Amino acid sequence: TFNFLILQRLKDWVAIESVSTDPEKRHLVINMMLLAEERIRKLGGTVEMVDLDMQELPNGNKISLPPVILANIVKDPKKPTVCFYGHMDVQPAKIEDGWSTEPYILTEKNGNLYGRGASDDKGQVLAVLNAIEALQKHELPVNVKILLEGMEEVGSIGLNTLVKQRNSTFFSDVDYIVVTDSAWLSNKPGITYGTRGICYFFVEIECAKRDLHSGSFGGILHEAMNDLIFLLNTLVDSSGHILIPGIYEAVVPLTEKEKKLYEGIEYDLDQIMAKYGLEEFRNKTKEELLMQRSRYPSLSIHGIEGAFSAPGAKTVIPAKVTGKFSVMLVPNMEPSVVKKQVTDYLNKKFTELNSPNSIKVTSDTGSKPWLSDINETHLCYLHSLVFGKDADMIRAGGTIPIATHFQEVTRKSIMLLGIGGPDDASHGQDEKISRYNFIEGTKLYAAFLQELATV
Amino acid sequence: TFNFLILQRLKDWVAIESVSTDPEKRHLVINMMLLAEERIRKLGGTVEMVDLDMQELPNGNKISLPPVILANIVKDPKKPTVCFYGHMDVQPAKIEDGWSTEPYILTEKNGNLYGRGASDDKGQVLAVLNAIEALQKHELPVNVKILLEGMEEVGSIGLNTLVKQRNSTFFSDVDYIVVTDSAWLSNKPGITYGTRGICYFFVEIECAKRDLHSGSFGGILHEAMNDLIFLLNTLVDSSGHILIPGIYEAVVPLTEKEKKLYEGIEYDLDQIMAKYGLEEFRNKTKEELLMQRSRYPSLSIHGIEGAFSAPGAKTVIPAKVTGKFSVMLVPNMEPSVVKKQVTDYLNKKFTELNSPNSIKVTSDTGSKPWLSDINETHLCYLHSLVFGKDADMIRAGGTIPIATHFQEVTRKSIMLLGIGGPDDASHGQDEKISRYNFIEGTKLYAAFLQELATV
Repeated sequence: TFNFLILQRLKDWVAIESVSTDPEKRHLVINMMLLAEERIRKLGGTVEMVDLDMQELPNGNKISLPPVILANIVKDPKKPTVCFYGHMDVQPAKIEDGWSTEPYILTEKNGNLYGRGASDDKGQVLAVLNAIEALQKHELPVNVKILLEGMEEVGSIGLNTLVKQRNSTFFSDVDYIVVTDSAWLSNKPGITYGTRGICYFFVEIECAKRDLHSGSFGGILHEAMNDLIFLLNTLVDSSGHILIPGIYEAVVPLTEKEKKLYEGIEYDLDQIMAKYGLEEFRNKTKEELLMQRSRYPSLSIHGIEGAFSAPGAKTVIPAKVTGKFSVMLVPNMEPSVVKKQVTDYLNKKFTELNSPNSIKVTSDTGSKPWLSDINETHLCYLHSLVFGKDADMIRAGGTIPIATHFQEVTRKSIMLLGIGGPDDASHGQDEKISRYNFIEGTKLYAAFLQELATV
Repeated sequence: TFNFLILQRLKDWVAIESVSTDPEKRHLVINMMLLAEERIRKLGGTVEMVDLDMQELPNGNKISLPPVILANIVKDPKKPTVCFYGHMDVQPAKIEDGWSTEPYILTEKNGNLYGRGASDDKGQVLAVLNAIEALQKHELPVNVKILLEGMEEVGSIGLNTLVKQRNSTFFSDVDYIVVTDSAWLSNKPGITYGTRGICYFFVEIECAKRDLHSGSFGGILHEAMNDLIFLLNTLVDSSGHILIPGIYEAVVPLTEKEKKLYEGIEYDLDQIMAKYGLEEFRNKTKEELLMQRSRYPSLSIHGIEGAFSAPGAKTVIPAKVTGKFSVMLVPNMEPSVVKKQVTDYLNKKFTELNSPNSIKVTSDTGSKPWLSDINETHLCYLHSLVFGKDADMIRAGGTIPIATHFQEVTRKSIMLLGIGGPDDASHGQDEKISRYNFIEGTKLYAAFLQELATV
């Protein structure tokens, strides 16, 4: 246990394995929502726990979605209202994945707080609530609303519909929406005004009804793995260039003015390389790297389902294998166009193979890239005032689909003001938030709310 | 439960999840050895449970190996002695892999007995013991020894050493060694006089110390999966031809005389295709298919460890991925030569990629192909007498390294006389033995022992 109350709170939250992708852990996501509800009530907030429709699993079964929290703290119509968004679910984590500490036991080492969700997103949400608590000792300077969900890591199932339904009620008096799910690029606070979008693809190849013994069947069969490996090898070249025809056509050309923006950002490439054990980046300069990550698409191959993936050796010819990869989208790439380009390309390449096996290319619904106008008053103002320093103005590599959706539905001013560090390893092993970011981030939210009252 | 005693015995054996590849199931393999010991003692056999050295796991931990059974039933020096070999461990199986029935509950459907190990190899060992029991009602016509191990599916760890140690004691009075771990090609009994060997390879590529988020890192990194997919795609072409230079050089050329052997074998290609849901074989005729499987090498890609392999979507860049594939060897391919050819080739291909990532190619110890002289008296004799029919003379696609080893160390006459069917799906989902093979196979073993007494 931690003597310092706000650290102990984070420990209590991290302890709950609220993995949204695993239906067997759904009750833990729900428990996590209840814990957040309790915390907000203790701040004097009124909380509505909104039930969503059931989730339909791939096997046809239905399962409850965790409730969404819509909360409201104080109400003075003369003051502006800010709505914070965050999520209580986390990516899966097991110590066997290569963690140095138990992923669900928050552990402090060398100024860092290690644990799944410490940064993404439990630590960030808690920092907001802690900032509110601190300001309440005197008086909360603005009206605060809070929206917390439990399905962000699997695409915020059900949330889009809810935002539409509550647009003229819950959101009607909201002036600013602040998404607390983003990271800084250095020790300076960063404001994220754009994110990439994503399309996630599944290529399934089937060569048999059941797995076969490679001794008995090796050599006499068109093996599904061969076809899949061939297809996955046609997606990017060794320089990272995506080989799918037309995929770069919609990318907005770089202007000199935009180029200048990247020069002012602090970002320590060596620190990141050391943290993740990288030999080198593809990009030689900080600016090139930030541009590749912010304003150009990329394609990553994540893995294969259905093949042998356990330790050791197994002499199997897998019957049905599904390759998984995703394309990160940038303005003005449209998910529907990218889906067609990728699907057509894979089907064409498969035809070239002349294989008797069957292919099925599917994709998720996809999410659009999001980009705010950097000249918007709200962003400019905060840019100069926040935290006593100029904030870095960031376009994130990852995707926060809910930001796009908030903007399209509510037409409010949206920003991402998170407090993650540049090397937090969210989604990876040894996820952490630094004590510095957690404490200074809490102060940042307090300063932000104070400043907002003076707008 | 089955009314028929010998089926109930098989059910009891299948019920034990004796998976040798999983250290956490090791106690179940040991339980299985104890159950077999009990069965042999009930036949009046004397049983030695031989402890082997400890097994060292990849993580450095040590774990007990299951004991090996060396058993002895009756002793009349005037009679010949036959030693049966079999194994009590099984490949992993889970109903989620796509089984129609619970893999560890023997279930009869349409004349087949479904369950993991029903054919490979519990059913075959039990048929031998049942045949002995039946003959004992009168008198066992020959001396019988039995060797059962529990680590066959992971390379018979420790057994080679034991065979050498006991060569001048346990094996000194053995005239014939019969391996009961092989399958027929039709409804006719088959005698296997050759098997392929194998080299199993692991190609590890590492691009980072920990997994990365593909949003934040996609595009700026040489991803390990890209390098691995590239390498795996250089192994075979779309016709199944292995692309590793020199790999076919040691393959014994086909003679007209050998070619004729394949023409007499009964093998129903359509039945196999229907059973496994195959669209087509690479080979157009039965003879071509049997030759590809018996006397030519093949290469199969089994899967990737370290990448995302679960259902659903995960936006991860895996830090370290290990591709697994194996090459089936035929006379006169030497494992040590193949290892060098494959390793050199992969390292050369990787150099072409100009990747900053690290590569490590490793392989298991490998096993040689095995081929008996088909003109040996013992084989010829049985060929004409067994089961009242001409047996099919088979060279198996899979590998039975212990057959090679028995031959090299003991210099005894070796044969594989199994009773599996042509479509038993050993190592796959819905493994089964047919009631026909199990019952007629038991009779075959009884007939074989009777005939052996008259040699």
